[in-house]
Amino acid sequence: KSIDPTNSTAMAGEKGLVLLDFWVSPFGQRCRIALAEKGLPYEYVEENLMAGKSDRLLRSNPIHKKIPVLLHDGRPVNESLIILNYLDDAFPDTPSLLPSDPYQRAQARFWADYVDKKVYDCGTRLWKLKGEPHAQARADMVEILKNLDGALGDKAFFGGHAFGFVDAAFAPFTSWFHSYEKYGEFSVAEVAPKIAAWAKRCGERESVAKSLYSPDKIYEFIGVLKKMHGVE
Amino acid sequence: KSIDPTNSTAMAGEKGLVLLDFWVSPFGQRCRIALAEKGLPYEYVEENLMAGKSDRLLRSNPIHKKIPVLLHDGRPVNESLIILNYLDDAFPDTPSLLPSDPYQRAQARFWADYVDKKVYDCGTRLWKLKGEPHAQARADMVEILKNLDGALGDKAFFGGHAFGFVDAAFAPFTSWFHSYEKYGEFSVAEVAPKIAAWAKRCGERESVAKSLYSPDKIYEFIGVLKKMHGVE
Repeated sequence: KSIDPTNSTAMAGEKGLVLLDFWVSPFGQRCRIALAEKGLPYEYVEENLMAGKSDRLLRSNPIHKKIPVLLHDGRPVNESLIILNYLDDAFPDTPSLLPSDPYQRAQARFWADYVDKKVYDCGTRLWKLKGEPHAQARADMVEILKNLDGALGDKAFFGGHAFGFVDAAFAPFTSWFHSYEKYGEFSVAEVAPKIAAWAKRCGERESVAKSLYSPDKIYEFIGVLKKMHGVE
Repeated sequence: KSIDPTNSTAMAGEKGLVLLDFWVSPFGQRCRIALAEKGLPYEYVEENLMAGKSDRLLRSNPIHKKIPVLLHDGRPVNESLIILNYLDDAFPDTPSLLPSDPYQRAQARFWADYVDKKVYDCGTRLWKLKGEPHAQARADMVEILKNLDGALGDKAFFGGHAFGFVDAAFAPFTSWFHSYEKYGEFSVAEVAPKIAAWAKRCGERESVAKSLYSPDKIYEFIGVLKKMHGVE
């Protein structure tokens, strides 16, 4: 699967944007989605995290040593939500992910932060744990999805009519839903029907479709993670 | 939206700002410091968390059920860093905590997020754990302080000449330093001399001095926490 031709490497020099990323990372995918939504060309650099971390990554993010890193004219910006915010601030002529109203901005930040704090960790507990801790992870994931379902309400996107900050932050996890359902033995469509419909709408968007991988590929990747962690 | 910082508490109702808080919370104290820096009058409502959570708190923050909550004309904003960001957005005529330059904004967000993710949790591990996990917590806290020392560098404040976003986010922990030193058996002045000097500068600021409690009071409070958690 190739990265968007319109965001091609040849054009990247123009804006001086480079993304250090790892194909399956939902945090990296947030940045890819945001860059695509804004129509900003960038150079995509795959970090082969399974083999180690590049000097460039370690120099660019000496504190967390994590992808994604956005380099803008050589200066690194770290942490995916901070990168999204930065893209809004640094490229004010592109479609804004955050709403302009201060209260709506705070709400968007709140839900993106909620996704950040809850979803990935809970998903990991789902495939890693057994017995009672697994049952707790399942209950937690159902609660998380229900809360997000409530926050979305009857809107097309978290941003309202427009795809926005929370949408970009949460959309990458839609390709993990299948794995969450398998390991959690629940149905997203049943526990959070609005989120299930939203996931479909997101998937129909070019920015999302070209940034994500298939649910099967994610399930397969989790299999690799399980082996790495010695989980049966 | 303009405010008159010369008017004080009598104006609280007019601005419609209410802070649900708990005296010792470093997260609540961030908001008190920010409100003071901005000269914004507000009604302070102490939540007696030791006795339970008020209906107002549960209604205002049904997701996390945590203080601090800022109510603005009755609408709740949750999560301390989001509250600081909101105050910048909603009261643009007050001194801004975040810098105006997009890259500097991202850097400020990065370090405030770092404080958020690291300091309180590591501090808790310091007084809660024994043996090897305690030694790890000590090593982690020293590393955290050294990293923040490096980020501060030779600036007076994280914000440069001006007290800003990271300063407001981190300053509340200066009154916990004494406890971290006691439980960690290290000296902040030795491992992070610039942070030690910065802490002193912060303490000389009215906004900080009136929002924090004495190091002894914090040490005493940790004693209460230890009893609650059955830690000897």
